[in-house]
Amino acid sequence: MRAVVMRNKELVVDTVPEPEPGPGEAIVKTLACGICGSDLHALKFADKMVDIARESEAPFAMDPARDIVMGHEFCVEVLDYGPGTDATVAPGHRAVSMPLLFRPTGIFGVGYSNDVPGGYGELMVLNASMLLAVPNGLGTEHAAMTEPMAVGLHAVEKARLDPSDAALVYGCGPVGLAVIAALRLKGVEPIVAGDFSLMRRALATKMGAHLVVDPSERRLIDAYREAADLRPAAVFECVGVPGVLQTVMREAPRGAKVVVAGVCMEDDHIRPMYGINKELSLQFVLGYTPMEFADTLGALADGRIDVAPLVTGKVGVGGVAQAFTDLGNPEQHAKILVEPWRA
Amino acid sequence: MRAVVMRNKELVVDTVPEPEPGPGEAIVKTLACGICGSDLHALKFADKMVDIARESEAPFAMDPARDIVMGHEFCVEVLDYGPGTDATVAPGHRAVSMPLLFRPTGIFGVGYSNDVPGGYGELMVLNASMLLAVPNGLGTEHAAMTEPMAVGLHAVEKARLDPSDAALVYGCGPVGLAVIAALRLKGVEPIVAGDFSLMRRALATKMGAHLVVDPSERRLIDAYREAADLRPAAVFECVGVPGVLQTVMREAPRGAKVVVAGVCMEDDHIRPMYGINKELSLQFVLGYTPMEFADTLGALADGRIDVAPLVTGKVGVGGVAQAFTDLGNPEQHAKILVEPWRA
Repeated sequence: MRAVVMRNKELVVDTVPEPEPGPGEAIVKTLACGICGSDLHALKFADKMVDIARESEAPFAMDPARDIVMGHEFCVEVLDYGPGTDATVAPGHRAVSMPLLFRPTGIFGVGYSNDVPGGYGELMVLNASMLLAVPNGLGTEHAAMTEPMAVGLHAVEKARLDPSDAALVYGCGPVGLAVIAALRLKGVEPIVAGDFSLMRRALATKMGAHLVVDPSERRLIDAYREAADLRPAAVFECVGVPGVLQTVMREAPRGAKVVVAGVCMEDDHIRPMYGINKELSLQFVLGYTPMEFADTLGALADGRIDVAPLVTGKVGVGGVAQAFTDLGNPEQHAKILVEPWRA
Repeated sequence: MRAVVMRNKELVVDTVPEPEPGPGEAIVKTLACGICGSDLHALKFADKMVDIARESEAPFAMDPARDIVMGHEFCVEVLDYGPGTDATVAPGHRAVSMPLLFRPTGIFGVGYSNDVPGGYGELMVLNASMLLAVPNGLGTEHAAMTEPMAVGLHAVEKARLDPSDAALVYGCGPVGLAVIAALRLKGVEPIVAGDFSLMRRALATKMGAHLVVDPSERRLIDAYREAADLRPAAVFECVGVPGVLQTVMREAPRGAKVVVAGVCMEDDHIRPMYGINKELSLQFVLGYTPMEFADTLGALADGRIDVAPLVTGKVGVGGVAQAFTDLGNPEQHAKILVEPWRA
């Protein structure tokens, strides 16, 4: 089958072996798969990612020296099932799934594995039990947004919000926008957000932020104080670049619950006394629970979250390498979807 | 009155003006006052402490260019009260208090203020409403330990322990030992602790740790796994030196609640991916609540916490400068008390 392959720290289009579904597994056709910031990180920092995963005793790891077909934000069409497997979603119907494949030989991260392909290829294998049928009314490109939007819901759940909390969001890239959508879903008000990019600020407003500022013009904490006064703060770090956590800790109000949702692959520096003097908490987050994933699909399907503004581009396999570059420009793109069935 | 004064980054014995109690205030005689690690920090990093306090919008600040009488871990004898003030503790009786003085002109940190003296001087003024009578059975030197032990109780409270949590304590200086005592008070088991110092490891055992290791011989996490298997972990960083938080984050089990109780005055570096991959939370802590302070006094008075092993030295004002040096040797001392009434 045709796929975009990460090989020698580059993205190339090539033909790779078709995956074969084992017992309990489905073979599916990738209809659309989002490009995640983590994929950009993986291309740049693959060796480092693997080293840190090993040090952190992560349950699975990949070998960057061998081929990897990335892509973990997908909507698929079910084609068939492996031997002796009951259909959970009828062939011909659409589904989404958390990007994990549980096999007797181990757990594989779909999109970060040498052994199973992710959504940048035409076909994948997924656990039958993990498939969630996409409701008819929900478009394929929006269903593919389930995974990144679930990241936002999880970050908000991990903040353990109190009814009095207001929210402050640093960064309005895909993670920040997903956090804003989830905060809105939870009825949090006000939601104050900041980003240097004009387009991203506009998207933040569309996703439900009540006050959006340009940090080059105004400190986010000053905007927060204007909008939320002295209310307790849930603060979301959604940038993931060294130095941002330090800014967040310096600005955060006393007692703030800081959720670190940005994925900073590099070493970072902090001034612990900011945290100590203000008794901050930092909750690092990763992924989502199965329930949060399913809830997110439901919120997309019934219109409580509208992801239409976030999908800013679609490419075939031939356009993925360029899309990785284009995503570096926040004025141009939020989310680009790969459609591996087209060239 | 006679006092140990921090002046030009040195400690000198000098005569300073006696403080005068205003309305609502008591004048008290310092019977014993512990030397805190923060005092050692303050002598070394006074300018930095002030800068960071200002950046963190701390409620009070001191000017290191002017005299400061430190000392915030005290047991006192009440002498008299200011004009129109009802006695809360009868003159001649002993008391402890949180080291904060609330005045119409602001809040003053007793021991970190240019305006009111701390416990390294013969006399202090304290709010009458803040005084807690020391029960008859509790020795003065042990009552003076209320403040540092309350720091441990607060750190443990902020961990929001679940019944299934076991505990892992990095560092067995005064903060770590107070944390161990509070964990034991809460019935947490096992408590695993580590310190490079033989004497501190012995004290950790006396304060209630179930398994104590030398980190130069064995990683704390390996000892934790032996004692607690895969039980969820409340982890306490009680060292406060750059690099330790990084070690804690690298070793901490998945989902650990890390309480940062060590006071690191310097900038530090972390690898955010350790936190992200394991969804760690870091709760920075400072001080204690009034209830925690009172509870700690009660626990000392009724013998649920025995601080006798922790008091390793006593000095008059003339011995304070040397005591600051001696406290740098963990094999020699845990807590040294200043008795300002003797030379």
